[in-house]
Amino acid sequence: MKGLSEREIIRILTNQFAHQSAIPLGFDDDVSGIPLSSKTWIIVKTDMLVGSTDIPPGMTVQEAARKAVVATVSDFAAKGVKPRALMVSLGLPAPVKNTTVQDIARGLDQAAREYECKIIGGDTNQANDLIIDIAGVGLAVPKTLIQRDGARPGDVVAVTGPFGRSSAGLKILLSKWKRDLAKYPSLVQAVHQPKARLAEGIYLAKSHVVTSSIDSSDGLAWSLHQIAKASKVGINLHTIPIPPDVKSFAKEHRLSALELALYGGEEYELVVTIKPERFDDLKKRVPSLTRMGLVEKESFGVIANLSGKRIQMKERGWEHFT
Amino acid sequence: MKGLSEREIIRILTNQFAHQSAIPLGFDDDVSGIPLSSKTWIIVKTDMLVGSTDIPPGMTVQEAARKAVVATVSDFAAKGVKPRALMVSLGLPAPVKNTTVQDIARGLDQAAREYECKIIGGDTNQANDLIIDIAGVGLAVPKTLIQRDGARPGDVVAVTGPFGRSSAGLKILLSKWKRDLAKYPSLVQAVHQPKARLAEGIYLAKSHVVTSSIDSSDGLAWSLHQIAKASKVGINLHTIPIPPDVKSFAKEHRLSALELALYGGEEYELVVTIKPERFDDLKKRVPSLTRMGLVEKESFGVIANLSGKRIQMKERGWEHFT
Repeated sequence: MKGLSEREIIRILTNQFAHQSAIPLGFDDDVSGIPLSSKTWIIVKTDMLVGSTDIPPGMTVQEAARKAVVATVSDFAAKGVKPRALMVSLGLPAPVKNTTVQDIARGLDQAAREYECKIIGGDTNQANDLIIDIAGVGLAVPKTLIQRDGARPGDVVAVTGPFGRSSAGLKILLSKWKRDLAKYPSLVQAVHQPKARLAEGIYLAKSHVVTSSIDSSDGLAWSLHQIAKASKVGINLHTIPIPPDVKSFAKEHRLSALELALYGGEEYELVVTIKPERFDDLKKRVPSLTRMGLVEKESFGVIANLSGKRIQMKERGWEHFT
Repeated sequence: MKGLSEREIIRILTNQFAHQSAIPLGFDDDVSGIPLSSKTWIIVKTDMLVGSTDIPPGMTVQEAARKAVVATVSDFAAKGVKPRALMVSLGLPAPVKNTTVQDIARGLDQAAREYECKIIGGDTNQANDLIIDIAGVGLAVPKTLIQRDGARPGDVVAVTGPFGRSSAGLKILLSKWKRDLAKYPSLVQAVHQPKARLAEGIYLAKSHVVTSSIDSSDGLAWSLHQIAKASKVGINLHTIPIPPDVKSFAKEHRLSALELALYGGEEYELVVTIKPERFDDLKKRVPSLTRMGLVEKESFGVIANLSGKRIQMKERGWEHFT
């Protein structure tokens, strides 16, 4: 039997809730908002890590717990909002070992320290799968929240870092290429120790020259498509930032480095559009910012002109149930 | 191998987080708080429903989804805080059927309507167990938050309804007493369609005469012990409100009705202490309020004097991993 896809599931849920009065950020956005006043919104995000599907081989429980927090923080980063507090809901298969809980506690604590937020509560349950569901809570001035629909023709399309390492690392971990674990440590590390671009996201939001933003956890191509669709524009890229280690790895295994960079996922960079005259200034303050192309007027989706070849990017990305 | 108990797991986690600056409500309280100002706190609660352990036989998926919301709302009720928004994190075993998602959506929506809160976002994942994790968010004026440590000698101990139906209903559902399904519909309904005492909790908090409060989801005896310990008082009961259907059921099956009422769980009443001179007034506005006994000065735990017999209540209740 073929089951529903993640997006089909979300459609059924949001249809059921459609009678509600409008919610500020919609169900599709990185985070949700609760207006307190015209000047303050509560920002909330939940992200669930599931043992059977989200923990690649070789990842420790401590790394998994840390990653659960990173995934939630990354969505705050995309909005330029600092998460102040985290709630942790755990599902643990019985019998539960002392060391497992210690590792989870250490991983959560490590991430909370990295992103300077506080763990304030949670819930512990017995389950048949390891579940680490993180709810983050923060505050935002609504007019400074970067949405997905603000990209305007002429804006620079940029990302906060290179792409492809997580996909390549995951291929190594899921394969029997044991030799590659030592040969490409940076690729494996990208999977085991991802980082959220929180400081960058907060700085970008404060700059007031970022016109749209999204985190790339569902993949670069997918994220670009979401900005293009929400903003009703086209995106035309001249570069995809693929680091040398990804290129060597791809060459060695006859894989497409471009595919690894475009259609991966769990890569927690920010994908943003920036007012063109301010890009260079911003780049000085956020050095990882990498120019990829331009926003155009027509809604042709996302294309890339790479070494004279025009590529139409598919709206495809990381999805559960596939 | 004997694994850790739920409370042992929580202890390891909270020890790891102990270096953090103090959190307003502590890890043991019904909800967590994030101070915004001296007048406003954000209140957050997450509660995870797990298919393999929290869904008794005969409960539909729609009822389970509704119950997941009830469990979160009940903790808000204990604090007298209205949950304004809900986030829903789902873990679903593949393949996912359309009807399963429809049922979950309907159950969530039904509960959101009952308690007048809005579902504003969430996360959907593939998992080996059905997971419905609900995060509720609300606002409170901190000085009106009813804590667990405010019970004073002379206060009336009261509950918002009778006890024992959920335990009795669960026994029916887990047994082969099929005949009892029809004979005791109110017991089965208590399990399948629990209700959170939100309106009552909000009214009680506004009255300013409730000195302590907790929800009884871990069992009546457990909840009373938490108030006694936090407030450093003793609780002396003269009545346990056990409804006639629980008494008949217990008699028929040679069970102790008192045990069913005291040591069950998943019964979402509020257990409160009230300034004695104001109990009668409050009872007029919250008719379900039932007087059970008095708070006393000495910390002797929780005792009951029932038909001339003195019973020392154990600090025992519903716990995962047992």
